[in-house]
Amino acid sequence: MSEIFTAGKKILEDQPFSRLLGAELTSFEKGKAKMTLVIRQELKQQHGFIYGGVISYLADNCLTFAGGSVLGDSVTSEFKINYTRPATGEKLIAEASVLSSGKRQAVCECKVTALANEGEKLVAVAQGTIIKVDI
Amino acid sequence: MSEIFTAGKKILEDQPFSRLLGAELTSFEKGKAKMTLVIRQELKQQHGFIYGGVISYLADNCLTFAGGSVLGDSVTSEFKINYTRPATGEKLIAEASVLSSGKRQAVCECKVTALANEGEKLVAVAQGTIIKVDI
Amino acid sequence: MSEIFTAGKKILEDQPFSRLLGAELTSFEKGKAKMTLVIRQELKQQHGFIYGGVISYLADNCLTFAGGSVLGDSVTSEFKINYTRPATGEKLIAEASVLSSGKRQAVCECKVTALANEGEKLVAVAQGTIIKVDI
Amino acid sequence: MSEIFTAGKKILEDQPFSRLLGAELTSFEKGKAKMTLVIRQELKQQHGFIYGGVISYLADNCLTFAGGSVLGDSVTSEFKINYTRPATGEKLIAEASVLSSGKRQAVCECKVTALANEGEKLVAVAQGTIIKVDI
Repeated sequence: MSEIFTAGKKILEDQPFSRLLGAELTSFEKGKAKMTLVIRQELKQQHGFIYGGVISYLADNCLTFAGGSVLGDSVTSEFKINYTRPATGEKLIAEASVLSSGKRQAVCECKVTALANEGEKLVAVAQGTIIKVDI
Repeated sequence: MSEIFTAGKKILEDQPFSRLLGAELTSFEKGKAKMTLVIRQELKQQHGFIYGGVISYLADNCLTFAGGSVLGDSVTSEFKINYTRPATGEKLIAEASVLSSGKRQAVCECKVTALANEGEKLVAVAQGTIIKVDI
Repeated sequence: MSEIFTAGKKILEDQPFSRLLGAELTSFEKGKAKMTLVIRQELKQQHGFIYGGVISYLADNCLTFAGGSVLGDSVTSEFKINYTRPATGEKLIAEASVLSSGKRQAVCECKVTALANEGEKLVAVAQGTIIKVDI
Repeated sequence: MSEIFTAGKKILEDQPFSRLLGAELTSFEKGKAKMTLVIRQELKQQHGFIYGGVISYLADNCLTFAGGSVLGDSVTSEFKINYTRPATGEKLIAEASVLSSGKRQAVCECKVTALANEGEKLVAVAQGTIIKVDI
């Protein structure tokens, strides 16, 4: 496992909310991050679909990891998400990449798919700005 | 308690993810919704601040309630959120209102504040489109 | 006319694109900006409505003026716009205000209305991040 | 030239604002659109860069063409744009594609580059919802 991947996994473990949800970082390199989240009953909404908030959490976090891979310690400044279909399935997969970056901020995009019996389907797309945390 | 408020509280109770997080609907009328969420340790991120995903969950859900108050059963189609400062405190308060609505969709805005010892501070603003669920 | 208002008008005059479109700054103070734009035939699209790009130009520019009123020389980093109805009428009116600001950036919102015989109607709402230009 | 490309060019010619700016549709097929815009002095802002409003106009229009290629007659419902660097150069190139579509709406993304002596550089990325016009 690369050094950056090990460091990324450590950051995710230090996020109580990510542990609560059960997110996993499955790939992490300069400019790219991939995360997965196994869906259980309490991550659904009243129509039985995966909760929008779970999807946007994963997109937001994956955007931050992508941005952080080039900026270092960072947070999401803003993002926008379009839900493209009601999400069903057993697992969410988010892939984010850096589109552009400078010293202080990076613009990233993220695609989220849901894995069900019928295969993998796009359920959301997000775009946002990640900013370096000043220390 | 008004009929719409009672119905709104029932919808929130039927959302397993909202129960997991502990969100509460504190006010609900035509065109407006207000929600609160008490912050506990597991809703924080690695720097000790309230997790962005918790804030965007609350904003997203509050937007949907506001839109649903004029459209009936609905979901968020898309939204955008700006985090305005690192959020600390014991409670999040979200207030959403409908800016414009038609038969099928409503455009809503939401402001999220965090309540701490020093008072209430704006931590995020969101804007999005809520669409009616076709049955 | 206040000093900041005079300075704002000067900036607008220095924007060739704003002169091309005919935008006017009608009010400008710390945290707030108001602009108008008279609609002529060439600012319309193929259905006879005011062109979306004209509306988003005005929203974007008004957001920048609002942000610039607290930051100094600045540019739009990103923004999001929802068109709330097809726009008809003789004049667009945009009002933007600062929701939150720091040393380097401000989060602003803008509402755009169209003035027609039937009165003033909301045609778009926007939200975005304005950043200070480093010199 | 394909039938859809000819139809697309006709729509652009019918947009007075697009003629005013000088936008051109250079490629148009199911799910994809490409547009260019030659930069002249009046499309710049006070710092000499290409005006943000010109870039967002082109992104917005290109998103609508992409969406329209699968939906038929349509308009932009909402979009979000991130400016990734100050834009200089002689020509803007926008490429939009459909990420997801249903009967009534499509979610599309668009990348805008500026062509200068040093080559082509990404200046903006946009994401938005295009909706079918009901007749």
